[in-house]
Amino acid sequence: MLEGLIERMLRGDKRATARLITLVENDEEKAREIISRIYPHTGNAYIVGITGPPGAGKSTLLDKLIRVAREEGKVVGVIAIDPTSPFTGGALLGDRIRMQRHSTDPGVFIRSMATRGSLGGLAKATNDAIKVLDAYGCDVIFVETVGVGQIEIDIVKTADTVVLVTVPGLGDDIQAIKAGLMEIADVFVINKADKEGADATYFELNLMLDLEKERWERRGWRPPIVETVATTMKGIRELWKAINDHGKFLVESGEIERKRRFRAEEEVKTIVSGRISRIVGEKLNEGEVASLIDGVVRREIDPYSAADKVLEKALGVKV
Amino acid sequence: MLEGLIERMLRGDKRATARLITLVENDEEKAREIISRIYPHTGNAYIVGITGPPGAGKSTLLDKLIRVAREEGKVVGVIAIDPTSPFTGGALLGDRIRMQRHSTDPGVFIRSMATRGSLGGLAKATNDAIKVLDAYGCDVIFVETVGVGQIEIDIVKTADTVVLVTVPGLGDDIQAIKAGLMEIADVFVINKADKEGADATYFELNLMLDLEKERWERRGWRPPIVETVATTMKGIRELWKAINDHGKFLVESGEIERKRRFRAEEEVKTIVSGRISRIVGEKLNEGEVASLIDGVVRREIDPYSAADKVLEKALGVKV
Repeated sequence: MLEGLIERMLRGDKRATARLITLVENDEEKAREIISRIYPHTGNAYIVGITGPPGAGKSTLLDKLIRVAREEGKVVGVIAIDPTSPFTGGALLGDRIRMQRHSTDPGVFIRSMATRGSLGGLAKATNDAIKVLDAYGCDVIFVETVGVGQIEIDIVKTADTVVLVTVPGLGDDIQAIKAGLMEIADVFVINKADKEGADATYFELNLMLDLEKERWERRGWRPPIVETVATTMKGIRELWKAINDHGKFLVESGEIERKRRFRAEEEVKTIVSGRISRIVGEKLNEGEVASLIDGVVRREIDPYSAADKVLEKALGVKV
Repeated sequence: MLEGLIERMLRGDKRATARLITLVENDEEKAREIISRIYPHTGNAYIVGITGPPGAGKSTLLDKLIRVAREEGKVVGVIAIDPTSPFTGGALLGDRIRMQRHSTDPGVFIRSMATRGSLGGLAKATNDAIKVLDAYGCDVIFVETVGVGQIEIDIVKTADTVVLVTVPGLGDDIQAIKAGLMEIADVFVINKADKEGADATYFELNLMLDLEKERWERRGWRPPIVETVATTMKGIRELWKAINDHGKFLVESGEIERKRRFRAEEEVKTIVSGRISRIVGEKLNEGEVASLIDGVVRREIDPYSAADKVLEKALGVKV
């Protein structure tokens, strides 16, 4: 069955592609099999991470970026990572629905990801979905996250180009978030740039960049700040150009090699961690491991010593 | 040295306590030693998770909750988890500074946590800091997170009581976040309830709760919705009562046992994952593991097969 699905996906069948993503998301064994089979067909897509606080208009921006990329004949993939229930795994689409106008275009594939609550599960599912879309033939894959949490940052930072979207006039909390993402951003966007306070936001961002001047000079790339009004297309082409410029910079500077190795490292680490968590999780209610946890609850053994024993008993790792 | 610090912490020395938290945050070996020594002194604090989107006014709310808890003579701990740079590890305090008015009160201990970017690192550091504050003598420990990311949800869901703060008039994205957190919330707060749209938010939240009616009935606790205006103290006492009511419910229903076992499980799993990641991380640039990663980059081996080999070679785990 997988064989057939993969064949259809490689021939550009969207339904087969959607089915494969569902499989890699839900079934560890199938994910393993699918990824190992399609892996030789991957490595062609350019990955763009789009992140920023809630309400920054990322989905509208993406909608317009898709349009511009399509005009150039690019096949576009979108993975929208929704904040979801850790228990039901259900994803809410919110205003992403407006992107669905592209759903009849065979050159656009949009997917919302739901997380299953396990640490690292979202990262693994995203990595795998990227590979399916890469093998499907996407030239560019946008990965959109709400971008405030640590995992979301971890996901987005493995992209080739990271676009950080902000809007004028946000509060203190948001400023903190923005600063937390500063160092992984390759392109800054001030969306809703027609709103009051856009100039102040530009000034402030520019100042923050100036403070890191030496780092940009050493690296050879200073993140540009693009002002957009996504609803009216203002600045969208400039943004698309900035993304492409950054891609060229990566290739010319050789930094792309470093990025891709980093991504491979993160991927392997994510899979390893996931397997370990699963092995440990399965044994939490069994025999000796269960007694250890009970001991932690009763304060008879501390969590670190219990973890040592779990590593030894459940995994055979001597620490 | 640790001996002396721990002794001073147990006698209520705030500076020793701060120093111990810094040590558990930064030094894996010291964390292990400190936690194993103080562990018998822990288990008395009640943990309250406070979460919600940026700009919901969580810090102001907390500031007022501290005041109410202090009036009852409770010793209060606060762990504020900031979105931070994955590279510098620096935390931005933002408007949390206003909480610092409590810093001269020996009955209040406030700590901002910085994450070091490693998956699970934030959860581990938070768990350990909670234990230090617990041993210090805190009766209640508030853990504040921005609460949109998966790790932040993972952290907050191990609390005894989870308070979800929202505000009227937020966009679609926020609605999704709120829904993502719905199932782990024990108490809902509509802060800034004097703003336009508060009634609509209340209505909507209540409707969402109605949809899950059977679950609440089965469980015996329907999350109350408390309307607050943190800046004027409106509703703060009601919120404090709702938190305490939930605590009583946990004890009376026996659910507290389940919660505490879950927390112990999560803690041990977090430590195990952290150790594994570290072991793997150290070997990423060495010999065989480095060659495996290079193979992944060159598409000679897929990440799953590479992960199997890493588990075997770096950890001795046969898969």
